[in-house]
Amino acid sequence: MHDISKINIELKEHIHDENDHIAYHVKEDMTEKEVMVVNVMGAPGVGKTTTLKNIFKHLTTLKPYVIEGDIESDIDTQDLQNMGISTFQINTFGACHLDSPMIRDAIKKMEFDSKGILFIENIGNLVCPAEFSIGEHVKMLITTATDGSDKPYKYPLAFEKADIILINKCDLLPYVDFDEDFFMKGVRAQNKDVPVFKVSGRTGEGYQEVAAWLEARGLK
Amino acid sequence: MHDISKINIELKEHIHDENDHIAYHVKEDMTEKEVMVVNVMGAPGVGKTTTLKNIFKHLTTLKPYVIEGDIESDIDTQDLQNMGISTFQINTFGACHLDSPMIRDAIKKMEFDSKGILFIENIGNLVCPAEFSIGEHVKMLITTATDGSDKPYKYPLAFEKADIILINKCDLLPYVDFDEDFFMKGVRAQNKDVPVFKVSGRTGEGYQEVAAWLEARGLK
Repeated sequence: MHDISKINIELKEHIHDENDHIAYHVKEDMTEKEVMVVNVMGAPGVGKTTTLKNIFKHLTTLKPYVIEGDIESDIDTQDLQNMGISTFQINTFGACHLDSPMIRDAIKKMEFDSKGILFIENIGNLVCPAEFSIGEHVKMLITTATDGSDKPYKYPLAFEKADIILINKCDLLPYVDFDEDFFMKGVRAQNKDVPVFKVSGRTGEGYQEVAAWLEARGLK
Repeated sequence: MHDISKINIELKEHIHDENDHIAYHVKEDMTEKEVMVVNVMGAPGVGKTTTLKNIFKHLTTLKPYVIEGDIESDIDTQDLQNMGISTFQINTFGACHLDSPMIRDAIKKMEFDSKGILFIENIGNLVCPAEFSIGEHVKMLITTATDGSDKPYKYPLAFEKADIILINKCDLLPYVDFDEDFFMKGVRAQNKDVPVFKVSGRTGEGYQEVAAWLEARGLK
């Protein structure tokens, strides 16, 4: 087993290097197209698609595009296409995160006819997606008031890497024990400057500020 | 890249075979000790530790033991040890699921002095843990009313493999749009006979039935 472990580690490093290399070119390509790429990450059920739908209502200067990452279904893609949003489906059939080759292949098949934001909804998973760049300008992390305030302590990498954090389901704050101070202490231990927005997919509160932050951000 | 992909697939098969082989021996070993092993799976924040604490209150014939799987923290282990529960911590430092070698090594260091149930709290992740047997007799899947009713459609493998499913946070049902019929249709498409229990970690409702189901199950 020892040799196999060593090969496995080397292979993982190779896969990560190759992924980063392709991610670099995806980002360069999208920057040239004047389309900002947002990697939307979060555990299952935090409201990733609902968040996108709410952000779309408040985008004033940039056109939204979407890549939906799902293990098998296309429920969310149907939903977004019904709203008239240009959405491309990636099914990973078991794989627990998106990688940059998947995105490189997807953007070849998509049409970007004006300046915009490409939201890439990653697989619902708070662990693996944080390890793989997919050519994004911005990593957006979504967590919720119902999932508890200990998440930054338990899943530190996702919080460390985030460029923007949303706390969704804040309409349920009166009914749950969410300790905001403890949560923010955990966030700051990983990430000193990341902006944190409180939102509610149900009431639509808070998304105007998120959309404004994204539109002001630029292609860096 | 093509050769690397092929090596990667073969290596993955090898890792799965090796994992299953060790899992078989873990299960055999624990059966001999008359300790049932329960693999507790669910996304981050569904209330895995809260569920365990509630089940413990209702166990009448079997002693609880716990292995806590976390990426980095030991918050939950501290919590359980304060309750006097024999708890062993595994930190995976990045890895997104527990595997059977980790469990084999952990149980060597634990003491099982009477008939019981070993609850193994897996990493918060609805994708990867479902792929790896860890020597369990029972796979317990926890989902929540707040995470939405589309989970069985989006994460089919976890629902297919579950021996028992808990819907936690049912005290919040009045405040969210959880479509139980749609949820159950999705569950049944993957898993014809799995029992589904509605529970609330906050109010303690429903856990007596879960504990009774586990105690009646036996070492099969």
